[in-house]
Amino acid sequence: MEKADSQMLVILGASGDLTTRKLIPALYELYIRNLLPENFVVLGVARTALTDDEFRQKQRDGILASQKELSAKDIRLNLFLECLFYVNFDTRDTAVYGVLKDRVNELQKRYLLPDNIIFYMATPPEMYEVIPVGLQKSGLTYSATGFRRIVVEKPFGTNLKSAQHLTRLLESIFDEHDIFRIDHYLGKETVQNILVLRFSNGIFEPLWNRNYVDYVEIISTETLGVENRGNYYETAGALRDMIQNHLLQLMAFIAMEPPATFDPESIRDEIAKVFRSLHHYTPEELQKQIVRGQYIAGNIEGEKVQSYRDEKNVDVKSVRETYVAMKLELDNWRWGGTPFYIYTGKRLAEKKTEIIIHFKSTPQQLFVGQCSGSSCNQLVIRVQPDESIALRFGLKVPGSGFEVRQVSMDFLYSSLSDKKLPDAYERLLLDVMLGDSTLYSRADAQEASWRFIDPIIDDWTKKGNEGLTFYPAGSEGPRNIGQLISLDEKPNFVRCKAIVK
Amino acid sequence: MEKADSQMLVILGASGDLTTRKLIPALYELYIRNLLPENFVVLGVARTALTDDEFRQKQRDGILASQKELSAKDIRLNLFLECLFYVNFDTRDTAVYGVLKDRVNELQKRYLLPDNIIFYMATPPEMYEVIPVGLQKSGLTYSATGFRRIVVEKPFGTNLKSAQHLTRLLESIFDEHDIFRIDHYLGKETVQNILVLRFSNGIFEPLWNRNYVDYVEIISTETLGVENRGNYYETAGALRDMIQNHLLQLMAFIAMEPPATFDPESIRDEIAKVFRSLHHYTPEELQKQIVRGQYIAGNIEGEKVQSYRDEKNVDVKSVRETYVAMKLELDNWRWGGTPFYIYTGKRLAEKKTEIIIHFKSTPQQLFVGQCSGSSCNQLVIRVQPDESIALRFGLKVPGSGFEVRQVSMDFLYSSLSDKKLPDAYERLLLDVMLGDSTLYSRADAQEASWRFIDPIIDDWTKKGNEGLTFYPAGSEGPRNIGQLISLDEKPNFVRCKAIVK
Repeated sequence: MEKADSQMLVILGASGDLTTRKLIPALYELYIRNLLPENFVVLGVARTALTDDEFRQKQRDGILASQKELSAKDIRLNLFLECLFYVNFDTRDTAVYGVLKDRVNELQKRYLLPDNIIFYMATPPEMYEVIPVGLQKSGLTYSATGFRRIVVEKPFGTNLKSAQHLTRLLESIFDEHDIFRIDHYLGKETVQNILVLRFSNGIFEPLWNRNYVDYVEIISTETLGVENRGNYYETAGALRDMIQNHLLQLMAFIAMEPPATFDPESIRDEIAKVFRSLHHYTPEELQKQIVRGQYIAGNIEGEKVQSYRDEKNVDVKSVRETYVAMKLELDNWRWGGTPFYIYTGKRLAEKKTEIIIHFKSTPQQLFVGQCSGSSCNQLVIRVQPDESIALRFGLKVPGSGFEVRQVSMDFLYSSLSDKKLPDAYERLLLDVMLGDSTLYSRADAQEASWRFIDPIIDDWTKKGNEGLTFYPAGSEGPRNIGQLISLDEKPNFVRCKAIVK
Repeated sequence: MEKADSQMLVILGASGDLTTRKLIPALYELYIRNLLPENFVVLGVARTALTDDEFRQKQRDGILASQKELSAKDIRLNLFLECLFYVNFDTRDTAVYGVLKDRVNELQKRYLLPDNIIFYMATPPEMYEVIPVGLQKSGLTYSATGFRRIVVEKPFGTNLKSAQHLTRLLESIFDEHDIFRIDHYLGKETVQNILVLRFSNGIFEPLWNRNYVDYVEIISTETLGVENRGNYYETAGALRDMIQNHLLQLMAFIAMEPPATFDPESIRDEIAKVFRSLHHYTPEELQKQIVRGQYIAGNIEGEKVQSYRDEKNVDVKSVRETYVAMKLELDNWRWGGTPFYIYTGKRLAEKKTEIIIHFKSTPQQLFVGQCSGSSCNQLVIRVQPDESIALRFGLKVPGSGFEVRQVSMDFLYSSLSDKKLPDAYERLLLDVMLGDSTLYSRADAQEASWRFIDPIIDDWTKKGNEGLTFYPAGSEGPRNIGQLISLDEKPNFVRCKAIVK
């Protein structure tokens, strides 16, 4: 396994949740697997006043929470914690970043580190414009001998204009290929597996186009509500929070052409092409091809839960969508005429993320019991909760005659490894340390996706309450999948119920 | 489930092994499943002198041997045995079949049976020409009100000429569509499943041709030797015993075009077309594309076993083949250029029957660890011992990078049923009772297959010992699969070893 060069990781916003719950536990896991660079230091930065020891204590708790069987006295845990440092100052003031620079210099000397630094922006998005300027002013963003990379968490802008503005600002300080826009969905094993499944096997590619695929579903549902993120969610909603980034990225992996070679730029070229092929909605399509909803009070697993409008930090008259179902089309040669349906929502009956490729039916019905219409042959790529791949097809029912039953052949992804599957952040942190941007999104792709999303946002802003439907928490959403597809008048749509595992 | 009209089954050669081990246990199973006709009588015929009761006792033992948990006093077993009758006379004398006719008439009256009769030839092949004549002379082969059908066990002839002769004889007495040439391989669930897999699913058919299939393997190996069938085997050999019928039929199911409709004649039309497309070997191909072998002494599962030439009723200088590996080609648009490899033999290391569709590799190697060459994507249809379907393909190894590993996604056919899978003879007996000849072979197909086989037999007869290779019992055969394929100089042939279940 390739190891990255020795380096320092500076986490901005290090006193926050993301650092404690995700980043540090992922780094610890990489440490245990011996995948961290030879010399490696994490420097946390935030306004909160903490000593190195207090910071370490907090991170120790985070790691222990993520690894139930680990003891607080574990030697390796304590060795790992010794690589963590902390510095606090008012990060909103771009004039005072010298404090950070001094600490960086001191640690580099103490640990004989080459001048390689990753800046990880684990801050609220409003800081994305401040921090890089502060870093630049202090001279931290330039190195004559090493590298500088910056990782930016979502949301990367809230529309095309803000995304472009942010890209311009970052590109005035960093090279585009040193800007890593993170999308943790791409860190998931099954998502990366889409590329391997498609491009390492000869049997899927011939079927992977408008001639054989009837439609594709991309489903990501949650049982959780907005929790304590009402403030953020009021400005984001399901469209920005899930679709513009995560689900369009999944779609791009499914829809992309084979890359020229398997290097980051070739792959990102193909992803950008998918986004540029997105069919932009006409005013009429905006009405017919999107369903947006918001949850009202209901029951989740026997417990009463409140409506979105009653959540903390949410406007009592909010028209923010917590559910979106939409039909997308790609105007290109591979997919013209094959719709993609995306569904996502909070407070739904089930938590799952999966992609279903529905293949076209046979041109003729030879057997009794054969699925009529489409949807008999499905390839199901489950991203969560159980990462797996399943192929659904018809087999003969044992006994006389030739009766057909739909069956499912499954491959549980965890059976490929005796260890637990790595968390998305492990993969993504390792990649940025190695400078591999394959799983990070590029400016042109981001902009193309915003170009597609912007008119939807504008339309909804204009309409407000009009067209917003409400669904009880714990339900299937305002319209179920079958209904959206029947909106489209698919003539023979039959979902095969009798799946035998 | 459809039931056949009331009828009588007359088994010729009823004192033999096939009747006791296969036919009667299969009929009992059909009885238990309530699939026998409303009124149904089995009349056994043979030279051996037995009373009805003695015949029933013998069949009871056969059923009990096939169903370990069954008690000899089981009420249903005894009710079933009451439908069995027996008559003995010298079946070699075509003048004395009046005895049979009298018994048939008496039973038809006693059990109010309509005049429907199936004659099942469970006799040695030399009787196939005698018995039908005897039946005809006694007037048993004609009915003004009911049906007459005849079931002929293999071997159906020993070459083209004798098969044609037998067909002419039978067709002078029965209609061709009342002649049922049995091939018990076609009674196996997984074999029938080939048709359902191919023609009820949209995803396999686009791949099912020369463009995507690299080659097909049809493998049927046994650990048994010739046992007590030395006499028969000396005249048959692996080519006639396994390939001319069973394995060419499997090949036809894999290779056939979709039938116009799913009726027996449409399907048998397509099977006959496959046989007519068989590329006949040139003298040079006869040398290069076939390997024949004979087992010498060796070890099977730790036990010493003797050579073929030392078996009972085998010539000490016998040149009869007990192993054949051959490369076949189909001269048609679907399969031109895609070879089929058939391997069969006795006294090999493993008992199994399976078909492997090897798909072509990707046109480009994008990933580390990806299978090079062909054989990365395989569809494995296992006929025995565990009836199953498996798809082999590449997936990503969990962790960093994009390393590929070959995995296998399996579907065990038994999971489709809570009962044990029906025996081949159950299905085939039920079909002939119903008059469904889908799984029985037709005269033109038989003749086309003999036309392909005859030149091979002639070549071997001419050569005798020359070209016969010897392999130790318990080995992989005289040439293993890879060697035959490399004979063919497949450039990139790599068998993927690292299959993860």
